[in-house]
Amino acid sequence: MLAWMGTGSSNGAIVAGHHTGQAQMGTVELERAVASARALRREIRAGRFTGQTSGQAPGYVQANLVVVPREAAFDFLLFCQRNPKPCPLLEVVEAGATAPPRLAPGADLRTDLPRYRVFRDGVMSEERSEVRDLWRGDFVSFLLGCSFSFEQPLLAAGLEVRHLRCGCNVPMYRTSIPCRSAGPFSGPLVVSMRPFRPADALRATLVTGAFPEVHGAPIHQGEPAAIGIADLARPEYGDPVPIEAGELPVFWACGVTPQEALLRAKLPLAITHAPGHMFVSDLRESELHWFRESLR
Amino acid sequence: MLAWMGTGSSNGAIVAGHHTGQAQMGTVELERAVASARALRREIRAGRFTGQTSGQAPGYVQANLVVVPREAAFDFLLFCQRNPKPCPLLEVVEAGATAPPRLAPGADLRTDLPRYRVFRDGVMSEERSEVRDLWRGDFVSFLLGCSFSFEQPLLAAGLEVRHLRCGCNVPMYRTSIPCRSAGPFSGPLVVSMRPFRPADALRATLVTGAFPEVHGAPIHQGEPAAIGIADLARPEYGDPVPIEAGELPVFWACGVTPQEALLRAKLPLAITHAPGHMFVSDLRESELHWFRESLR
Repeated sequence: MLAWMGTGSSNGAIVAGHHTGQAQMGTVELERAVASARALRREIRAGRFTGQTSGQAPGYVQANLVVVPREAAFDFLLFCQRNPKPCPLLEVVEAGATAPPRLAPGADLRTDLPRYRVFRDGVMSEERSEVRDLWRGDFVSFLLGCSFSFEQPLLAAGLEVRHLRCGCNVPMYRTSIPCRSAGPFSGPLVVSMRPFRPADALRATLVTGAFPEVHGAPIHQGEPAAIGIADLARPEYGDPVPIEAGELPVFWACGVTPQEALLRAKLPLAITHAPGHMFVSDLRESELHWFRESLR
Repeated sequence: MLAWMGTGSSNGAIVAGHHTGQAQMGTVELERAVASARALRREIRAGRFTGQTSGQAPGYVQANLVVVPREAAFDFLLFCQRNPKPCPLLEVVEAGATAPPRLAPGADLRTDLPRYRVFRDGVMSEERSEVRDLWRGDFVSFLLGCSFSFEQPLLAAGLEVRHLRCGCNVPMYRTSIPCRSAGPFSGPLVVSMRPFRPADALRATLVTGAFPEVHGAPIHQGEPAAIGIADLARPEYGDPVPIEAGELPVFWACGVTPQEALLRAKLPLAITHAPGHMFVSDLRESELHWFRESLR
């Protein structure tokens, strides 16, 4: 048994539950309340849903949010273009607008995410539930695909998604793999991790490889140290999950990567979602394949 | 027989030959001379190859070029992001640089294309064989995938590529399909056309659909008027090709689309390749699948 394979014991007791949304509402009511993306955004906007969004509004595409002032927008757009695995761009919302016309024309990016992070001069200075009072007319918003969007297809393929079973956020790790830089934006790739038995890891690779708009195939499986991860039990973002005997950790590029780049870019002000607390769009996962092909 | 299907006569006599590169050198010597992309670029830089590049340096990825001043670069990058079918971005070369680090680190974008177009105030003011004297330190260069890169895979699948058989440039047409706009950039989708029998059109769709980085699957087949094309014998760019009895015209999004957008954007100065006269990169077509997946 290789040291980095799951033993069924080392992480076995770690199940996090410090995200409150689900616990407050109860699973059954929640499922009813968030039957559609719009209903979930309404709950979020009203402050009634504050948790992480994995498994919520099943079937709808979720997105990472990055908001930067217009003067940094070219460089950030270029950072995304150069790093499509962690930063698959779904939509860019131009300065002055707060709704993404293609992903959710009725949404408000200032209020419709359950939790935000505010970056000031390269420091993550606060988390909050809305950012109306911080919003500026020169803010450009970037919505990047999120791996939560391929979790339903994983479940449909008969695979178990560990953090969904545990009812916690997905574990995310800083790696030693550098992104391609663009202007002030640089930094390490961040990955999300889901454990699978070796044969299921292959299956998960095929399933997720069909969704390049939401990170696509994994970037690594197996030995965490090979990509600079020291301890799977201590993710930099999200919650640890148990890895069972004979399972491999499988790693996907993650949309939290820009948050590491924001720490280095030291913009006076920038805003993101809080890891795992995504923007839930009106786009269905079943439409993702056609999102790129569509001309209208 | 539908009016837009090939009859084997209406376009049968049209075979263009006014591009001189191939005729001057002879097919056999040319094949030797341009066995690699670097050799072809050397010939182009020396002024010895001036023709269109379809079928040249087989196996190497070719690219459309668009050069705009830095102040227009965010909007143009956004135009590409919003219109990935005609504008699949392969690489962006930042202000001050003239070589694309990933696609061809030893190239010079000012001299290594066989023909350029210069746009001034929304007018295509001249074509020329190099643009050294026009180059400015604030120019940002965009390299977009080109459908020539899926022609070898089409041939490998046993399909005939008509303009290659005719020894001319691919026919390209302005359509009535509008692009999604970004800042000053807007305008109609331009398409390239290759005729196929119906069953071969299906095969060509599968073959090219596997190459989204170079326009991917067709956007239309059959009736040209349905996408605003009045006369297949009169392409807006490139050369007409014969359509034989029972063949369908099949249309792919084309990297000449930004040239229509430049006419409308009316930038004081912008530069592109001349249609069909592409930048030939060091990237092999067989590497295209991994270009997006690669992290380094």
